Amino acid sequence: MKKILITGCAGFIGSNLVNFFLKKNIEIVGLDNLSTGNIKFLKKALKSQQFKFYKKDLLNNEISSHFKNISMVYHLAANADVRFGLKHTKKDINQNIIVTYKILEAMRKHNVKKIMFSSTGSVYGETNQIPTKENAPFPVQTSLYGASKISAEGLISAYCEGFNFQSYIFRFVSILGKGYSHGHVFDFVKQLRNNNKKLYVLGDGNQRKSYLNIDDCINAIHKSINYFNDKINIINLGTNEYLTVKESIKIICNTLRCEPKIFFKGGKRGWIGDNPMIFLDTKKIRKSGWKPKFTIKESIKITTKYLLDNQWILKRKV
Amino acid sequence: MKKILITGCAGFIGSNLVNFFLKKNIEIVGLDNLSTGNIKFLKKALKSQQFKFYKKDLLNNEISSHFKNISMVYHLAANADVRFGLKHTKKDINQNIIVTYKILEAMRKHNVKKIMFSSTGSVYGETNQIPTKENAPFPVQTSLYGASKISAEGLISAYCEGFNFQSYIFRFVSILGKGYSHGHVFDFVKQLRNNNKKLYVLGDGNQRKSYLNIDDCINAIHKSINYFNDKINIINLGTNEYLTVKESIKIICNTLRCEPKIFFKGGKRGWIGDNPMIFLDTKKIRKSGWKPKFTIKESIKITTKYLLDNQWILKRKV
Repeated sequence: MKKILITGCAGFIGSNLVNFFLKKNIEIVGLDNLSTGNIKFLKKALKSQQFKFYKKDLLNNEISSHFKNISMVYHLAANADVRFGLKHTKKDINQNIIVTYKILEAMRKHNVKKIMFSSTGSVYGETNQIPTKENAPFPVQTSLYGASKISAEGLISAYCEGFNFQSYIFRFVSILGKGYSHGHVFDFVKQLRNNNKKLYVLGDGNQRKSYLNIDDCINAIHKSINYFNDKINIINLGTNEYLTVKESIKIICNTLRCEPKIFFKGGKRGWIGDNPMIFLDTKKIRKSGWKPKFTIKESIKITTKYLLDNQWILKRKV
Repeated sequence: MKKILITGCAGFIGSNLVNFFLKKNIEIVGLDNLSTGNIKFLKKALKSQQFKFYKKDLLNNEISSHFKNISMVYHLAANADVRFGLKHTKKDINQNIIVTYKILEAMRKHNVKKIMFSSTGSVYGETNQIPTKENAPFPVQTSLYGASKISAEGLISAYCEGFNFQSYIFRFVSILGKGYSHGHVFDFVKQLRNNNKKLYVLGDGNQRKSYLNIDDCINAIHKSINYFNDKINIINLGTNEYLTVKESIKIICNTLRCEPKIFFKGGKRGWIGDNPMIFLDTKKIRKSGWKPKFTIKESIKITTKYLLDNQWILKRKV
């Protein structure tokens, strides 16, 4: 039986990947330090004999022993916070660059040659090419998060060249859906659950963003890995549409049945490094036959309802 | 009086920068751990009152106190070895990524906002765009060295956005001239001084490479910083020509007056991550009025003679 390793297995995308592969009868080793991930997301998975969970800090703990007999690593563990990168600069360096390096070395030690990596559309900085292709003009980084992810992409690519690894690097838009616990829908629902008369919004609300449903995301990852077979596969993941923050507020408010007064703070960008327009060209992934099942509007509605049904998530410190 | 800080001040480019700025009456703090740099390169500079040298390991020593009252940092310290990156993967991570991060944090602590950074044409990987512009298509990294430099570029750019730094990032071709102590001219001269009947060459000799003379390089750096004034300035540095490895062997052999038998090892690439064709588009730097004084052929001749006159360099472990 194939055995895979998932880092960040208790996180949003990680835990969904665990459940997906358990249904496919694949044996899984899952690592997570539970700092932003939550064991509750693995409730069902932990009952399975196929899943072995280890609470491990990828930065500080010895991890390489877990890489024995692994056929592929899905490296999802990350500091996934764009907004607060400047408050604790070391987090992006440690969690996104150094941890990726440690994973690559552990793979090398145990002759594991295949890696999936969760990168981000943020690596394109504020590109002029919209929709943005995988081979867009050489970008200038605008956030530490983006910079740390492009670092990790570079290291992975160099290991592919140098040590004959094969990689699947996905540049995601924001992901929504079950297990979602971080981002603007989270912030807005949380605020409105506390007080549905007022909503504070970072930026002027005209930021145009693209989102993808978690189920579509997981399917795209799986389909890509079976379809593409280059040494280094770099693939944008997103839908063929975008939404303004104002439009997404409308959907959230309709779902929550409230009409708050809205206060916008700041200008075009909600924070330093915020990108006023994220819209990825997804022609490459569509070559695999994949297409998303959910529109952005549906995903926002699903996510809002999910948060209402799982209010423990809203209470977490993030 | 303006005071600048130069890291890697005892290295090839660093020591030439020190001498250049001393002539301009600028006060200099120089840091170097003397691992690949050599104190002999600073012989003249050390006699100057304007120059303060500190033997410091940028990775392990506390360095931030040196950043007090500095107007600009010239960050030249690096592991500059493309070829052996895979033998000691941690070197590129530590020396090129982590050290750059430490420099940026030290600058932030002491409110130093301006940084010059020595990047490399290697960040373009094996691009299809030749000559290669600064905004070439998003490259895929082929060496750990290139990956570590693109990481550092990304961190510097993110600090410019986040903390209002200003940066001058230079993507160099190989540099030749006085103080040169590393690279193919070095290898060939060293081999031929030991035995001028035989020469072993990595690759098929048809690799086309571009080179720049150190004096032209230093002038270009200085001119750019006075001419360009964006928040993030990314600038290719090179000449408008290239040479095959075979052609450069001919010049070296003519200068040394020998006719060795030549043995080529390997194929198109001399080693993993070697780029068979490096030729940068230099229209941007030429906007500043700069142009090189030396042709590649002249530079190779000058460098060969320099190594003959300074044979202690050939004896160094590199």
